[in-house]
Amino acid sequence: MRAWEVAESFGRDNLRLVDRPDPHPGAGELLLRLRAASLNYRDLLMVEGRYNPKQPLPLVPCSDGVGEVIAVGAGVRGFAAGDRVCPTFAPRWLAGEPDRERLRTVVRPPQHLSDAEAAALPCAAVTAWSALVEQGRLRAGETVLVLGTGGVALFALQIALLHGARVIVTSSSDAKLERVRSMGAWETVNYAREKAWGKRVRELSGDGVDHVVEVGGAGTLPESLRAVRMGGTVHLIGVLAGGEASLLLAPIFMQQVRVQGVLVGPKSSFEALNRALAQHEVRPVVDHTFAFEEVPAAFDHMAAGAHFGKICIAIP
Amino acid sequence: MRAWEVAESFGRDNLRLVDRPDPHPGAGELLLRLRAASLNYRDLLMVEGRYNPKQPLPLVPCSDGVGEVIAVGAGVRGFAAGDRVCPTFAPRWLAGEPDRERLRTVVRPPQHLSDAEAAALPCAAVTAWSALVEQGRLRAGETVLVLGTGGVALFALQIALLHGARVIVTSSSDAKLERVRSMGAWETVNYAREKAWGKRVRELSGDGVDHVVEVGGAGTLPESLRAVRMGGTVHLIGVLAGGEASLLLAPIFMQQVRVQGVLVGPKSSFEALNRALAQHEVRPVVDHTFAFEEVPAAFDHMAAGAHFGKICIAIP
Amino acid sequence: MRAWEVAESFGRDNLRLVDRPDPHPGAGELLLRLRAASLNYRDLLMVEGRYNPKQPLPLVPCSDGVGEVIAVGAGVRGFAAGDRVCPTFAPRWLAGEPDRERLRTVVRPPQHLSDAEAAALPCAAVTAWSALVEQGRLRAGETVLVLGTGGVALFALQIALLHGARVIVTSSSDAKLERVRSMGAWETVNYAREKAWGKRVRELSGDGVDHVVEVGGAGTLPESLRAVRMGGTVHLIGVLAGGEASLLLAPIFMQQVRVQGVLVGPKSSFEALNRALAQHEVRPVVDHTFAFEEVPAAFDHMAAGAHFGKICIAIP
Amino acid sequence: MRAWEVAESFGRDNLRLVDRPDPHPGAGELLLRLRAASLNYRDLLMVEGRYNPKQPLPLVPCSDGVGEVIAVGAGVRGFAAGDRVCPTFAPRWLAGEPDRERLRTVVRPPQHLSDAEAAALPCAAVTAWSALVEQGRLRAGETVLVLGTGGVALFALQIALLHGARVIVTSSSDAKLERVRSMGAWETVNYAREKAWGKRVRELSGDGVDHVVEVGGAGTLPESLRAVRMGGTVHLIGVLAGGEASLLLAPIFMQQVRVQGVLVGPKSSFEALNRALAQHEVRPVVDHTFAFEEVPAAFDHMAAGAHFGKICIAIP
Repeated sequence: MRAWEVAESFGRDNLRLVDRPDPHPGAGELLLRLRAASLNYRDLLMVEGRYNPKQPLPLVPCSDGVGEVIAVGAGVRGFAAGDRVCPTFAPRWLAGEPDRERLRTVVRPPQHLSDAEAAALPCAAVTAWSALVEQGRLRAGETVLVLGTGGVALFALQIALLHGARVIVTSSSDAKLERVRSMGAWETVNYAREKAWGKRVRELSGDGVDHVVEVGGAGTLPESLRAVRMGGTVHLIGVLAGGEASLLLAPIFMQQVRVQGVLVGPKSSFEALNRALAQHEVRPVVDHTFAFEEVPAAFDHMAAGAHFGKICIAIP
Repeated sequence: MRAWEVAESFGRDNLRLVDRPDPHPGAGELLLRLRAASLNYRDLLMVEGRYNPKQPLPLVPCSDGVGEVIAVGAGVRGFAAGDRVCPTFAPRWLAGEPDRERLRTVVRPPQHLSDAEAAALPCAAVTAWSALVEQGRLRAGETVLVLGTGGVALFALQIALLHGARVIVTSSSDAKLERVRSMGAWETVNYAREKAWGKRVRELSGDGVDHVVEVGGAGTLPESLRAVRMGGTVHLIGVLAGGEASLLLAPIFMQQVRVQGVLVGPKSSFEALNRALAQHEVRPVVDHTFAFEEVPAAFDHMAAGAHFGKICIAIP
Repeated sequence: MRAWEVAESFGRDNLRLVDRPDPHPGAGELLLRLRAASLNYRDLLMVEGRYNPKQPLPLVPCSDGVGEVIAVGAGVRGFAAGDRVCPTFAPRWLAGEPDRERLRTVVRPPQHLSDAEAAALPCAAVTAWSALVEQGRLRAGETVLVLGTGGVALFALQIALLHGARVIVTSSSDAKLERVRSMGAWETVNYAREKAWGKRVRELSGDGVDHVVEVGGAGTLPESLRAVRMGGTVHLIGVLAGGEASLLLAPIFMQQVRVQGVLVGPKSSFEALNRALAQHEVRPVVDHTFAFEEVPAAFDHMAAGAHFGKICIAIP
Repeated sequence: MRAWEVAESFGRDNLRLVDRPDPHPGAGELLLRLRAASLNYRDLLMVEGRYNPKQPLPLVPCSDGVGEVIAVGAGVRGFAAGDRVCPTFAPRWLAGEPDRERLRTVVRPPQHLSDAEAAALPCAAVTAWSALVEQGRLRAGETVLVLGTGGVALFALQIALLHGARVIVTSSSDAKLERVRSMGAWETVNYAREKAWGKRVRELSGDGVDHVVEVGGAGTLPESLRAVRMGGTVHLIGVLAGGEASLLLAPIFMQQVRVQGVLVGPKSSFEALNRALAQHEVRPVVDHTFAFEEVPAAFDHMAAGAHFGKICIAIP
């Protein structure tokens, strides 16, 4: 079995392609041959040692992917060799190890998706669904603010459109804003030009948006709180723009805002997501699919920040 | 002020066009000049004395419509002469009386709708929204069974599609089924040919549908309970096909089904509905708009049962 | 291993004490030595062939109990020999077989309970909790109608009192009504004397009760629908008094009643229930604990119908 | 009509007792003769000009109280002279003006309460109910952390106990902690001695508390986030300890915490609260009731911060 690992010290330059012994599935386990993986921003942070500096090494990065069942452990029902499945979110599985969680953490991705597209789902898409649909009970006619054009953001756009909501997207790139418009975004705001973008979004939406898909954290939360309507929800999903906010709390309780932390979601959310994607033949936006040998280049591409959609890796 | 009333005894033949004294708005009241009305099946039952045989006469039938504010009572804020508004569901208002309920029972219909279309909303559309969206928390990827092609049914179809659900519709008319397909229905079942339509719907949907919009009552509920999935919801909205069911109860608790009685909904539901209709420029299906002088013909048309969508009345 | 089974034909007279080979736990399984069991009315129906006449024989009756882990299969984590656990609802386990479901269907009962008391929980208590708390979101100040004094009924009484609700209980026995009053019931109605007990309950409660714990089915549902308030919930849990109802449907939708089928509940409900019972040291009401050799007498006692609370069996 | 007002500049020393013209109820309005009022911390901030420095003067402080209907405006139904009612939260009503909001903002307080006790309800009790019961769906067996012993805090304690929850209370005063123990608190933590009180609460509760009633704001939120369990809720109600927090956001989304802003609640919450208080004859904790002439002393008493429960004012 081959794997990319960060062995001796953190850093993209320290990714090494290594051989590891072939694993065998224990009781209640499945062994998968991975076909594709996808990168999350967290993976980049992990490789660079910024996610958890105390993370023991070697580290096999990435959590998301899709694979084919090649061996079935004792006591496993419902799966057979040849099935295409996505593990649900669980760190370190790119090492080719079968899912160490319960069996229920494997789901069958929609058939219309390529391997790269299926590999894009586990973290980002489930998180967006969990936030807007499960926690947020999104309904037609509502307005959703999506920050940026990363993985969670584009899934949130697609999921919101599926439910008949209208979506406002922010970005510092007019080209990216043009692309989200072509995907169905109702309005866009270039936050590089429009510093007070929270106020701008509030005006566009009338009384403020019903939902904010907040991935920026400290750097964006104050403006997000300006954009959200009284009684609306800020889905706090990530801290791309900083983890420590100097935050005025009065708007939260005066406006009765809900700030809801969201971290992926259960298998049932993943399955409900898949059902909706399948019915409407929605495809994840894949920016680029790198070959397995190009994993370091894939991380460099994420670090450069110019991508639009998921960065995927094909595994031969 | 002119009004149609059932004066001496029940029956469509006893509808009379009469003059009534002009009303004046009391404190907290608005006076509307009606521009359009729409018929619900309940109105037919009322005119024929089948809804409530003890209903005192004279009766001015109909509950749904749209009008223009022409006078504002003391203490009313937020409305002015000239505003176009729909009263919410409240019996007897077609007499031209202002809303006897609180002011909050008036809402502004979407601007893109004609008067006849706006008049179609208060009962049927709010009921469908209240059932699927408020009570049912409909989400993309779910499957909805809609019984027939009446007012509530067609609104349920439109609302379900707005939320990314797929819809199965039943009818005894292939022509009507063809029309719902053109509106976006996923599958259709002709219940005249397919007596075991509940089983057929269950098969089509996989494990049973998530929601049934049940308007038939006793005549259809047993089949609806066959069609719904474990843990699904039957929204019990009407009893067109009979009010007394001989019902096997075991499937309800063995399958953990929810049977949810729905009767219109609050103003907030009406406003949320309007917002969604406006954003997507959805228009109610109006079968035919009769002139005010043709009110008896409108009721005859409803009694004949061949209509598709709402029967409306223009008021000069 | 010894077991009671219905071997050749249905009937309480056909219960036989037999020897069976000792089972061994497979992957993902636990082997329990049962310490106590409890009877549900469904068990009586099964023994008598009235639950499912096509049930294959031999049948080992009962689903509820508590046991000690004596062997742990491959791949099982979190449990060790000596642990006291309740399997969750799953037929046929009294044969001493370990849980055939996933491991997650085992929970640790509250420590303050005796074995007989712990054995009383899996079906009846979880069903009452699932209905009132999970589905019904019971809150302090609400009024709950509980039909009768069976297992689910008495748990519903205890759970409702824990949440600050007031409870009305019906029975045909004044002695039993006296006992529920001593347990904290607010009002009682003797339905043998008060035929129109639904109306009586409505009067007692003001505008109708918020919840009905409906275990009678066809024989009681019409009165339950009279007792419930507009917008209230009838938790349909059993059909002791008949399975086929001739039911007027109009009250359900005119009063916007929810009829919610409830069949036990998930492990998470069982655990939440246990937490509440433990904090308040609530004990199930055990009518009588029979010795293992007296299993037929236990079924006769249930058939006689004079019990108050759960009928349990001690297993040596 | 007499009123206390802050006339020329902010400050407790500037409270003046003045005569004002008697008001008359307009259409849709009620005129109340106030019998009692209660102070909220916000009232102190307003008087001192710290709540809104741009607040126009003169200001009649206080929002909460109870009164007797002495005149009924046109179009008002359901209320008559002599009724005892609480206005719901609406600023400036202590001037004796009738409720400027809709009629629905008046509710009848529980009969077992004195005027001072009834006056204590509108803000603090409705806020605690709205947070724990409406937003939080509190259930028996859960654990609630209540910060301090102010008005909202003590109502939260009482409401949580009504629902079968266990409650941990913090204070810097052992004497106050003794009092909350005698009211039924399960555990207490003196935060003056136990600086890492969030960690301490987490340990006491096992895996963290289900709910935090957070009234401190910036000064306490970081510790509250340590105390709450994964998936739990921090009800953000006030900012007694500061309005601008330097906040680490990662715990919110890593632990999937909900931070829910709460500001009072609707009439329906007030009525549900009253029903629960009435059934269980729960009485608000009134620290002291001042005479109407002593209003400045009442504010001084609040500023001193040694009170336990509500500070009320009797109005002759």
